[in-house]
Amino acid sequence: MNLILLSPADLEGDSLARVRDPRRLAHLHRVHRARPGDRLTLGVEGGGIGRGELLSLDEHEACFAIDALDQLPPPALPVHLVLALPRPRMLARSLEHVTALGVKHITLLHSRRVEKSYWQSPELATEKIQAHLVLGLEQARDTTLPAVTLAKGFRPFVEDRLPELLAERRGLLAHPGMPRACPRGLSDPTLLLVGPEGGFIPWEVEQLLAAGCEGIHLGPRILRVETAVTALLARLF
Amino acid sequence: MNLILLSPADLEGDSLARVRDPRRLAHLHRVHRARPGDRLTLGVEGGGIGRGELLSLDEHEACFAIDALDQLPPPALPVHLVLALPRPRMLARSLEHVTALGVKHITLLHSRRVEKSYWQSPELATEKIQAHLVLGLEQARDTTLPAVTLAKGFRPFVEDRLPELLAERRGLLAHPGMPRACPRGLSDPTLLLVGPEGGFIPWEVEQLLAAGCEGIHLGPRILRVETAVTALLARLF
Repeated sequence: MNLILLSPADLEGDSLARVRDPRRLAHLHRVHRARPGDRLTLGVEGGGIGRGELLSLDEHEACFAIDALDQLPPPALPVHLVLALPRPRMLARSLEHVTALGVKHITLLHSRRVEKSYWQSPELATEKIQAHLVLGLEQARDTTLPAVTLAKGFRPFVEDRLPELLAERRGLLAHPGMPRACPRGLSDPTLLLVGPEGGFIPWEVEQLLAAGCEGIHLGPRILRVETAVTALLARLF
Repeated sequence: MNLILLSPADLEGDSLARVRDPRRLAHLHRVHRARPGDRLTLGVEGGGIGRGELLSLDEHEACFAIDALDQLPPPALPVHLVLALPRPRMLARSLEHVTALGVKHITLLHSRRVEKSYWQSPELATEKIQAHLVLGLEQARDTTLPAVTLAKGFRPFVEDRLPELLAERRGLLAHPGMPRACPRGLSDPTLLLVGPEGGFIPWEVEQLLAAGCEGIHLGPRILRVETAVTALLARLF
């Protein structure tokens, strides 16, 4: 928690914030070992970042006097990430990694090699997803929550949503064996598609290429989804 | 397990291999759902890669007929990674990520912000470290185990080991706030140093810079060690 992310409900006017949930309180007690008088980094969801002085801390509440929250959050990556739904634990970690790296648009996509049971996972509940996004923001000192959408059908995604996404973005399909190495240092709007463990099936690859995506690869090594996504984002941008 | 990594003890001459440990057997049964006649990718520790036919599989043993193991493992990264010892769970995942990415030389370093208790963790036992390296190799279809060394004193490392490491390598210190952005697409031998959660302390940064390392940063976002290491390796090489 390199930044204490305040929700609008935590604020009392412009100058006071009260944190009452057990997770953040426990972190302030155990990790920060915070004491009244400490100055910590605060940010408000969707807003600015600044410092605040801890006025009081007990087991029920931390109260902060906020300085101006006048710093901007760090820049976002110019990417919309389309990720074949990983298994639940991998999903949790991948959401934290990509949020910390600055991804603001995430679509979780069904594909042939995604086990149908993954769509029933409690990890897909809105509040569970939100919890992982918040962890990523707190890690990276960011305040802008990513938007996460679910695309439970591959064909409807390709037919109905992909054309408009590609209208304003360069589409890159990361898939082993594609002819072109992953490009470096992009700054233009990009749609990055990453398959499931085992990859997109050939028919899905064909559909994505036919829709206008370019195939790229990360070399001969087969990486876990969470490693691959981090590596792709770091190399691309 | 995208490759079944055989130890020399698993081999019976050039053409047969017997796998008997519960982990690999369980994976063959439950994930691969392997049956006699299936052809799987095999590799031998420190050696080549090829295919083998599963001759038999029961709860005690899998027996393979090996084709020639005549393919080379994927190329290694030209890096020696010096990582301030992370907390145990982060260490486990970081070892798997960096091994999958192709790192072959890893030094785990003490620094001021490494909790001393981490050096007592069971995760540092040779066989525990080896287990994570093997998982990384199996993931990436590699056979060359990384060498892992422990440097339990910061000052002895800087005085006694760092000069010879830097004699043949470009030293890069990844640290927030350094003036230069992480370079891209290197191919020369590199020593990459990554600090603990909270970073190297200023005195440590001074020592490393004075020894000849260049300071580099990954931008304003503060990343977890496992995310940062993967991002650095993907961007550098």
